[in-house]
Amino acid sequence: MTAQSMSPLTEDESWEFLAGRPVGRLATSVAGEPEIFPVSFAVGDGRLYFVTHPGSKLAEVAVNARVAFEADEWTPEVATSVVIKGTAEILEHDADVAAAEATGLVSYLDDGKNVWVRITPEAVTGRRLTR
Amino acid sequence: MTAQSMSPLTEDESWEFLAGRPVGRLATSVAGEPEIFPVSFAVGDGRLYFVTHPGSKLAEVAVNARVAFEADEWTPEVATSVVIKGTAEILEHDADVAAAEATGLVSYLDDGKNVWVRITPEAVTGRRLTR
Repeated sequence: MTAQSMSPLTEDESWEFLAGRPVGRLATSVAGEPEIFPVSFAVGDGRLYFVTHPGSKLAEVAVNARVAFEADEWTPEVATSVVIKGTAEILEHDADVAAAEATGLVSYLDDGKNVWVRITPEAVTGRRLTR
Repeated sequence: MTAQSMSPLTEDESWEFLAGRPVGRLATSVAGEPEIFPVSFAVGDGRLYFVTHPGSKLAEVAVNARVAFEADEWTPEVATSVVIKGTAEILEHDADVAAAEATGLVSYLDDGKNVWVRITPEAVTGRRLTR
């Protein structure tokens, strides 16, 4: 058994951390059933952005849904994780899409037929565990 | 816009991938609200194991709950992800705990006051995206 310490991150530190992580995971609840999706994401103006295919399961669940989002980084000694709780929505207005594109997101999922999803946070929680 | 390809992993490939990943994320749904937790995990006998603190939020939600679990790995060119859907339970019987300990799990969260959680899968889905 090894002692370990846990430090919270401030909200600023949490955002800084998120801005440096290219991939996170979106968790949703559909009829009481949890779902989880890895996504490439970007940060802009205190919101998270990612793309998905229209008609995909992820697009379905992202329609004004309550979501939890997590990104992390770990070495054998230190694990850092930030969790966002908030609401996801598919962007339909040109100005919103322009703001999303301005994040410069690089996604694995990019065949030109995507829709943008934006997560507006209600709570941001970051923590760092040190072995 | 860059074309990309997606290949499914077989169930065997998915388990092999999971066995080589030290950290994953557990998603749960509590009263319709999604939650997500990063965890150090291990694989044994076709099940997933991790530890948590008794009385923690994670311990609460893991009581016989439907969960989704995800682990991934990515480079700029290739992203691999495996998602498990199943049921989580806190282990209370000595034989179950012995099986869990036999996985040799190394966790950040280890102060000697932990409980084991086991996920029994119902569905395993793996995929690999190549840019």
